[in-house]
Formats: sequence, structure tokens, C-alpha cells
Amino acid sequence: PSSLNLAVVAGDGIGTEVVEQGLLVLDQALHGTGTTVRTTDFDLGARRWHATGQTLTDEDLAAIRTHDAILLGAIGDPGVPSGVLERGLLLKLRFALDHYVNLRPSRLFPGVRSPLAAPGDVDFVVVREGTEGPYVGNGGAIRVGTPHEVANEVSVNTAFGVERVVRDAFARAAARPRKKLTLVHKHNVLVHAGHLWRRTVEAVNAEFPDVTVDYLHVDAATIFLVTNPSRFDVIVTDNLFGDILTDLAAAITGGIGLAASANINPDRTAPSMFEPVHGSAPDIAGQGKADPTATVLSVAMLLDHVGLPDSARAVEAAVAADLAERGAAERVRSTAEVGKDLAARVAG
Amino acid sequence: PSSLNLAVVAGDGIGTEVVEQGLLVLDQALHGTGTTVRTTDFDLGARRWHATGQTLTDEDLAAIRTHDAILLGAIGDPGVPSGVLERGLLLKLRFALDHYVNLRPSRLFPGVRSPLAAPGDVDFVVVREGTEGPYVGNGGAIRVGTPHEVANEVSVNTAFGVERVVRDAFARAAARPRKKLTLVHKHNVLVHAGHLWRRTVEAVNAEFPDVTVDYLHVDAATIFLVTNPSRFDVIVTDNLFGDILTDLAAAITGGIGLAASANINPDRTAPSMFEPVHGSAPDIAGQGKADPTATVLSVAMLLDHVGLPDSARAVEAAVAADLAERGAAERVRSTAEVGKDLAARVAG
Ligand SMILES: CC(C)[C@H](C(=O)O)[C@@H](O)C(=O)O
Ligand SMILES: CC(C)[C@H](C(=O)O)[C@@H](O)C(=O)O
Repeated sequence: PSSLNLAVVAGDGIGTEVVEQGLLVLDQALHGTGTTVRTTDFDLGARRWHATGQTLTDEDLAAIRTHDAILLGAIGDPGVPSGVLERGLLLKLRFALDHYVNLRPSRLFPGVRSPLAAPGDVDFVVVREGTEGPYVGNGGAIRVGTPHEVANEVSVNTAFGVERVVRDAFARAAARPRKKLTLVHKHNVLVHAGHLWRRTVEAVNAEFPDVTVDYLHVDAATIFLVTNPSRFDVIVTDNLFGDILTDLAAAITGGIGLAASANINPDRTAPSMFEPVHGSAPDIAGQGKADPTATVLSVAMLLDHVGLPDSARAVEAAVAADLAERGAAERVRSTAEVGKDLAARVAG
Repeated sequence: PSSLNLAVVAGDGIGTEVVEQGLLVLDQALHGTGTTVRTTDFDLGARRWHATGQTLTDEDLAAIRTHDAILLGAIGDPGVPSGVLERGLLLKLRFALDHYVNLRPSRLFPGVRSPLAAPGDVDFVVVREGTEGPYVGNGGAIRVGTPHEVANEVSVNTAFGVERVVRDAFARAAARPRKKLTLVHKHNVLVHAGHLWRRTVEAVNAEFPDVTVDYLHVDAATIFLVTNPSRFDVIVTDNLFGDILTDLAAAITGGIGLAASANINPDRTAPSMFEPVHGSAPDIAGQGKADPTATVLSVAMLLDHVGLPDSARAVEAAVAADLAERGAAERVRSTAEVGKDLAARVAG
């Protein structure tokens, strides 16, 4: 593309710090590609909510839609009631823009310390469904605050929604050397949703006969993530299980400071969104302590999405080289220093 | 008690093997206490289902109710459709007998290898709610098998149900040296259920002012379980999150071969049930390979529950001593050998 029209939602806390570095690396990665980036900042998140009470207006959403992609830092601060910005902004973006593929790669880069004693080679990707499951907001409560309160949460799963994400996951598995897909669910308890997922995986497997499929209950999947993470290639799972598994996956591959994610609309009917898995980390915000690597790796995913795979590989290679040398470093660098170093490596 | 009237549901696969050893150790632990045990075997599980199509009849349930406690091995084989025995037998027992406290201790015994490089001292207990949440079976599906299928799962949470398990968890925390309770939920997304849990913990905290409370989202909790499990003392959480966290907790403390659990009815309106966390493991069944330790530790929990704490401590001490010496052992012992060794240690 000759231009990349990027919506930037830096957000709160360390969000602004890491996004600044992500953009620096992006600029460098686009150098010589013939693509120029134009960014629009969106003032969304806790700051805006405290000032105006707004989370995401129709106008915000319409403006964001006109962009090619979104780079998001992190949303939230402790002063905002739980759920307000998650439901009203972050999840609203994922749902409104139909980000049904929430892609979260986990790779243990050489030089990175895992909390596991013997992690082995870890290189898998979780395809987390992004628009259904218990995240739909179809819960409710009666007699709130009384001894007779009943609070329900409804997980909604549709053949339409499950099939499209399962097909995407199969296509990703088919394109990888090991060609292995693991469905994670809990179909022995959540029988209705679970059986829909299971039947769908079986059906779509017929279109991808060279992909090997297996199944794990979500509880067993957490065991394998710490005892044998190498067994995973592509995991496909629902929104909530994917949330849980990807934080655990990040932990075993060096922490959420390194975990990238992409909220993808594969049909390209709306811009996809790229964001680190970590949150706004108010405890370290404003101190230059945040690791921008997760954001930079999210930028690589963005480059892949907009059709610049060579630039994506260059960013990943810069991160890999940087991580390989961290163990030998004399001191911990600031957010800006890491960003600068990564940009320099991309510049080559 | 002068007698212990025990319902035994050995079940399938390795269930029968580990229960045999659990009973051997139980016998030994009761020696000299003045309590004699009387067991009734219940033929429940896959074998019965294949033969009769029955999971748990009203007569079975009524007969089980007349007992002081239940020792359960494991249920299921690959020939039974997923969900049939889970919903129709295992969860039916938990629900019908009002096992609202599903207690799962995690302790890294000296000598046991954790997959974590630096686990530290791990000694916490998960109080998993056992009668509500997404386990209630209130889901359903329409247009099954068509492109328009919708499959819902409903998580039901009541003030009554949450409060009683939270109070139990606080009482357990108050009785432990560290007096720390961590609520795990996902209240930023599951806002209705999550806020009920949160408000309840806040309210009950007033009755236990010396207990320190903190909160983690379930995704973050999985991170801490691998990066800093020592931070946990008592965790209270819902049925599904508890299922996931306790398998992970078992993994970091040496595997499900060591993980005990108790399904407790604290009001004693029905017998409580003691079972290893692991399943029937058809792959190793009948080979004497299963580790009966989880069952033996579940027997210790049973002894506590029926008011024989000295016997419970003796069983735990036997397990601890056995585990401490395993590293030095020349060969892997059979299920029966481990049972015999543990019984011998209890005999003293
Ligand atoms: C902040 C929260 C709503 C979000 C989620 O649960 O999806 C986060 O945990 C994530 O994984 O991106
Ligand atoms: C077998 C299954 C229904 C059960 C559960 O999910 O509770 C098991 O995983 C457990 O943890 O006891």
C-alpha cells in the first residue's frame, strides 16, 4: 500500500509510553517500502472518561472505521469502576469492528527466561474467538444487593461465529510446518457450546485434511502449558478460555511484557486492531519502566495484516536479536531506550 | 466416631486401583482410634452405563445418602459420550448432595519436582464453589446441526450460594497462619456475577477483619500461579475458574497424581465426597501404574472431615515421608506397592 492510515488509541498508563515506541519502530520498518503512515490519535480511555463520562461514542467509532488499522496501547486506571472501559470501550471495539479472530502468538525467544525449568521449544499461536462466548454481555441480575440476588452470565455461541473462527484457525494451522490444531473447550460440562465447537472442528477438518486435530479440556490444557508447551502448534478456543490460556502462555514465554496480539477482522469489513496483551499497569506508569516489546511485536502483526510481511519479519528479527542480548546487558533499559534500540536494529 | 459408614464409588479405569490403596491406608489410619469402617461399594460409572444405560438412579442416591462419607475414584471411559457421566453422575452427586465447598489443597512437598524452575514454598488451598456457576446445566441450543445453531451456557450465581462458600473460605483463611484470601474472578467482563462475588467478599470480610483480601482476574491468577505461587494462601473462586486453576495448581506442585480434593457439604445435610482430582486415565488403566497418592491424600481430608484429625495428620506425614524419598528410589513402584508402603508408614 502507498499509505497506511492508522488510528492510534494509546490509552492510559503505560499505554502511551509503549505506543510511542511502537510507532517509532513502525516508522523505521516502513522506510524504503514506499508506504507512508498517517496516524490519527484518539483520546479514549480513563482520562477521557474521567473528563467527560464518555467511553466510545458513535462518532468515535465512525471515525475509527475510516482507518486501515488500529494500534492500541492499554486502557484503564483504578479510578474507573470495573467493567466500564472494558465493556464500553475495549470489548465494544472488538465487537463493533467484528474482530472475530483474536490472534495471540506465544514464542519463547532465545535468551528469554521462562519460569519453567525445561520449557523446550515453544512456538504456538492461540486463535481466540473474539465476538461471542461469555463476553457478549448478555448477563443480568435481579434483586441486586439483597440476600436473594441472582446474577447470570450467558455464553452465546453460534454456528456462524464458531465456524468462521475455526476455519481461520485451520487455515493458519495448514500454513505452519507442524499442521496441528488443538481445540480447547470443556465439552464434558458445557455440553451445548462444547458440542457445537467439537462438531464444527470435525466438519471443517474435512476441508483441511492435512491438519491433525486434537482436543483438550481447558483444565488439562493449562497442565500441558506448563508440563509440555511444545506440544502446541495452533490452539483454537472460545473467548474466555482464550483469555485465560493466553495470559498463561505469555507467562511461560517470558511474561506479558513480550506478548503481542491482533484483533482481526479477516473479512476486512472494518479495521483490525493490534495491541499488547498487557494492561495499563498503573503501578509503573510514567516511569519509563514498561517494556515496549509486546507493542512492537503487535506492530509486526499489523505489518503482516496490511501486506508488508518483509517489514514484519524485520521487526520480529530486531526483537529476537534484542532479546538474545538482554541477558548479557549491564542494566535494564528504559521504555524509550528499548524502542530506540529496536528501531535501530530495524534500520539495520 | 465409633463407626464410619463409607460409600465407595471406585468407578472406572485407574479409579478402582487407587481406591483399593486408599482403603488400605484408611484401614491402617483407623487402627487404634476406636473407629471401625464399614464400606458399601456402589457400581457406578462407565461399566454400569454400558451395561444398563443408568448413571445414577434415585435409589442409588438414596442409598448413598445413608452414609457418613463417600470415597470416589474416577469416572469415565472413552466409550461413553462426553458429558453423560459428568453431568449424570459426578456433577449430579456434587449438586444433589449440596457439595458447595470443593476444597483443593496445593502443596509442593519436599522432594517433589515442580515444572517451575523456582517454585518457592507452595502451600495454598482453592475453595472452589461446587453447586453454581456455568456448571448448573442451564444451557441449551436451538437449530442444532444447522448453520443457524445457537448454543448457550448460563452461569447462575446467587447471593445465597456465593455467600456460603465465601464465608467458608474466610473461615479457612482465618485459621491459617497467613490469613490471606484471594478472590479470583473476571469482574471486568462478567460484570453481574463478578460484582456479586466482589460485594460478597467485601461484606463477609467484616466478619473476619484479620483476614487480608485481594483480588485477581482469572487470567492474571494463572500468571501468578507460574511466576509466584507462594503468594497464594486461600483462593476462593467460582466453579469453572476453580476447575481450571486447580488443574494448573496441581501441575505446578507435581502433577494430578498428587492432587487431592474434597467435595464438602459443610452443613452436613448429606455426605461429603472425597476424590483425587485426576480422571480414570484409560491409557494406563489396569497396569498398576497409577499413583494412589492423590487418593490417599483425599482419604486424609476425609479423616479430617469425620473428626479424626490425628489420623489425617498421620496419613499426610506418611505421604510426605514417602515423597521425600522417591527421588532416591531405584525404580518406580506399582500402585499397590505405593499403597502398601504408605500403609506401612501410617502403621508407624
Ligand atoms: C481487559 C480485558 C477485557 C481483556 C479481555 O478479557 O479480553 C484482556 O484481559 C485481554 O486479554 O485482552
Ligand atoms: C470431570 C469434570 C466434570 C470435573 C469438573 O470439571 O469439575 C473434573 O475436571 C474435576 O475437576 O473434578
